Amino acid sequence: TTHRLAVIPGDGIGTEVTPAAQSVLDAVAARHGFGFDYREFDWSCERYRTEGAMMPADGLDRLRDHDAILLGAVGSPGVPDHVSLWGLLIPIRRTFRQYVNLRPVRCFDGVESPLRNADVDLVVVRENIEGEYSQIGGRINSGFPDEMAVQETVFTRVGVSRIADYAFRLATTRRHRLTSATKSNGIVHTLPFWDEVVAERAQGFPDVDWDAEHIDALCAKVVLDPGRFDVIVGSNLFGDILSDLTAAVAGSIGIAPSANLNPERDFPSMFEPVHGSAPDIAGRGVANPIGAIWSAAMLLDHLGHPEAATEVVDAIAAVLSETPLRTPDLGGTATTSEFTAAIVKRVA
Amino acid sequence: TTHRLAVIPGDGIGTEVTPAAQSVLDAVAARHGFGFDYREFDWSCERYRTEGAMMPADGLDRLRDHDAILLGAVGSPGVPDHVSLWGLLIPIRRTFRQYVNLRPVRCFDGVESPLRNADVDLVVVRENIEGEYSQIGGRINSGFPDEMAVQETVFTRVGVSRIADYAFRLATTRRHRLTSATKSNGIVHTLPFWDEVVAERAQGFPDVDWDAEHIDALCAKVVLDPGRFDVIVGSNLFGDILSDLTAAVAGSIGIAPSANLNPERDFPSMFEPVHGSAPDIAGRGVANPIGAIWSAAMLLDHLGHPEAATEVVDAIAAVLSETPLRTPDLGGTATTSEFTAAIVKRVA
Ligand SMILES: CC(C)[C@H](C(=O)O)[C@@H](O)C(=O)O
Ligand SMILES: CC(C)[C@H](C(=O)O)[C@@H](O)C(=O)O
Repeated sequence: TTHRLAVIPGDGIGTEVTPAAQSVLDAVAARHGFGFDYREFDWSCERYRTEGAMMPADGLDRLRDHDAILLGAVGSPGVPDHVSLWGLLIPIRRTFRQYVNLRPVRCFDGVESPLRNADVDLVVVRENIEGEYSQIGGRINSGFPDEMAVQETVFTRVGVSRIADYAFRLATTRRHRLTSATKSNGIVHTLPFWDEVVAERAQGFPDVDWDAEHIDALCAKVVLDPGRFDVIVGSNLFGDILSDLTAAVAGSIGIAPSANLNPERDFPSMFEPVHGSAPDIAGRGVANPIGAIWSAAMLLDHLGHPEAATEVVDAIAAVLSETPLRTPDLGGTATTSEFTAAIVKRVA
Repeated sequence: TTHRLAVIPGDGIGTEVTPAAQSVLDAVAARHGFGFDYREFDWSCERYRTEGAMMPADGLDRLRDHDAILLGAVGSPGVPDHVSLWGLLIPIRRTFRQYVNLRPVRCFDGVESPLRNADVDLVVVRENIEGEYSQIGGRINSGFPDEMAVQETVFTRVGVSRIADYAFRLATTRRHRLTSATKSNGIVHTLPFWDEVVAERAQGFPDVDWDAEHIDALCAKVVLDPGRFDVIVGSNLFGDILSDLTAAVAGSIGIAPSANLNPERDFPSMFEPVHGSAPDIAGRGVANPIGAIWSAAMLLDHLGHPEAATEVVDAIAAVLSETPLRTPDLGGTATTSEFTAAIVKRVA
């Protein structure tokens, strides 16, 4: 088999970690007898500066016909977020109904956690296309003392049900524990609804032990006792917060991966590291490729190669625990290519 | 002087830590030549169970004529949040225009942080009456597959300006560093507005070094490098999350205090520990009174007794660093009254 992948390296260190992930994909695929046919898209803030848009008008259509999308990072100083993010990343998530944003977090031997006792092995399941990130809202009385801005959070029964089902199902393949992030005591319309729908869906998964925690207390518990969590399901905003927080607790957001999934496979899913374009270190060849490589492992899993996926994650763990190779963000002096070469060697 | 205080112990451990705070207030006041005249209100979930409401219909009016309000905690299993919180706590915050929720966080010698390197001394300034906790919203198609719930977040120029001004002013009395919590890259109507208004108000405080951080990255940084923060200003929701998270990073939410302030003093301000009613440990006399006592210190400051306030906080620090006295939540065996007696002895 040859999988057709759309590759969007994007900006900053996105252009450094994406080729790293591709070389790992090629190496592991060769050994397993499959391959990748890459189509690269230069959609980025640089393209915006010359062409006036992050991607062409028919950009989404050009992506449609791929088995998956590998994305690096988008964003550049001086380019507003509504251009860089809402002109590329967010439309891909939404148009391709990638309603699951899956973010595994674990501690690796050899990566120091900021916590004295961190024993983290969890997955954040984030609702990815509705909720707090809605386009509904605006301002009135702009520039005057009585100016105000409003924004509508929108939760649908369909949207909450499908993310809850996904998370409960995932919990049945893990330690059968699920925590639902809420704040229904303060946000009294949308989050009580979230709670009700999650409780309803829970009935389909009697062997999953679950509870709901308010986001404030939940963030505190993530720091005080991260080992208690297995699957955490949250809205677009709460999932965003929890995935960065849990990744930090495990030691670094430079290693965190993510999968933007359309579980029904009506559209391509997208795989991207959680970190951003990091303009401060871009161009120096020292970006940590682990987030991108781990995201590529999630892509392998999605495309039906769970063994190859496991081998890639095991290779990351092995290089971190058995060698002193580290990029500067983890306290080492390795370059992106040195670290990547060590992974490639293990999976080839 | 005698200050008139309204006291609402509330539910669970609220009824245990509030008298503790009062005995500290009495002791320190006596030494400084002032006093308190307490009026106690039994407003609580217990009252709700017998009378059908947390407080009487004219409850807010009865509070109005006090110099300040001391509150323990509200909430009890089986009583819905819209009764316990929206029938007491939140109406007080809103009716009395307590738009600042001030939450200092610091590490005490003798309280172990979950972090390897925690050096925290910061204040979260939380917008307390608008933002995400709005009453505007509802549902449609209840119980049907096309059901949905919406909720409006509302930021006004007046509301954002006054909380930003308060936070910047506070920063000028501290280390001149301010961080504004945002998520304007994802929540594209309300938070870009928040950012703009904060940037405008910043111009009035040229000696404060400030920046804005997205809430996801900010939560990660709080864990990875908490010492960098001085004043953090955030919306109702972000301030709620950040105050629990930073308190956990400093070792415990059992010690965190809060002041709900009406800075113009048109109405009484309210002082309450950040922790809740903790039904699991209520009635056993082992609740940690530090959050309530520290909140009482903030009340002293607000009523014009900064020296007495400092003495109370210093007494907490001294008992924690010089004695082994700790309530069970901090790993000790002291009761609420034993710990409180040690504080009273120091401030008397
Ligand atoms: C109980 C709840 C509504 C409240 C809030 O979020 O405001 C609490 O968490 C707090 O921080 O005071
Ligand atoms: C860049 C931003 C809009 C994005 C998000 O919040 O979705 C990012 O933080 C992420 O987590 O993928």
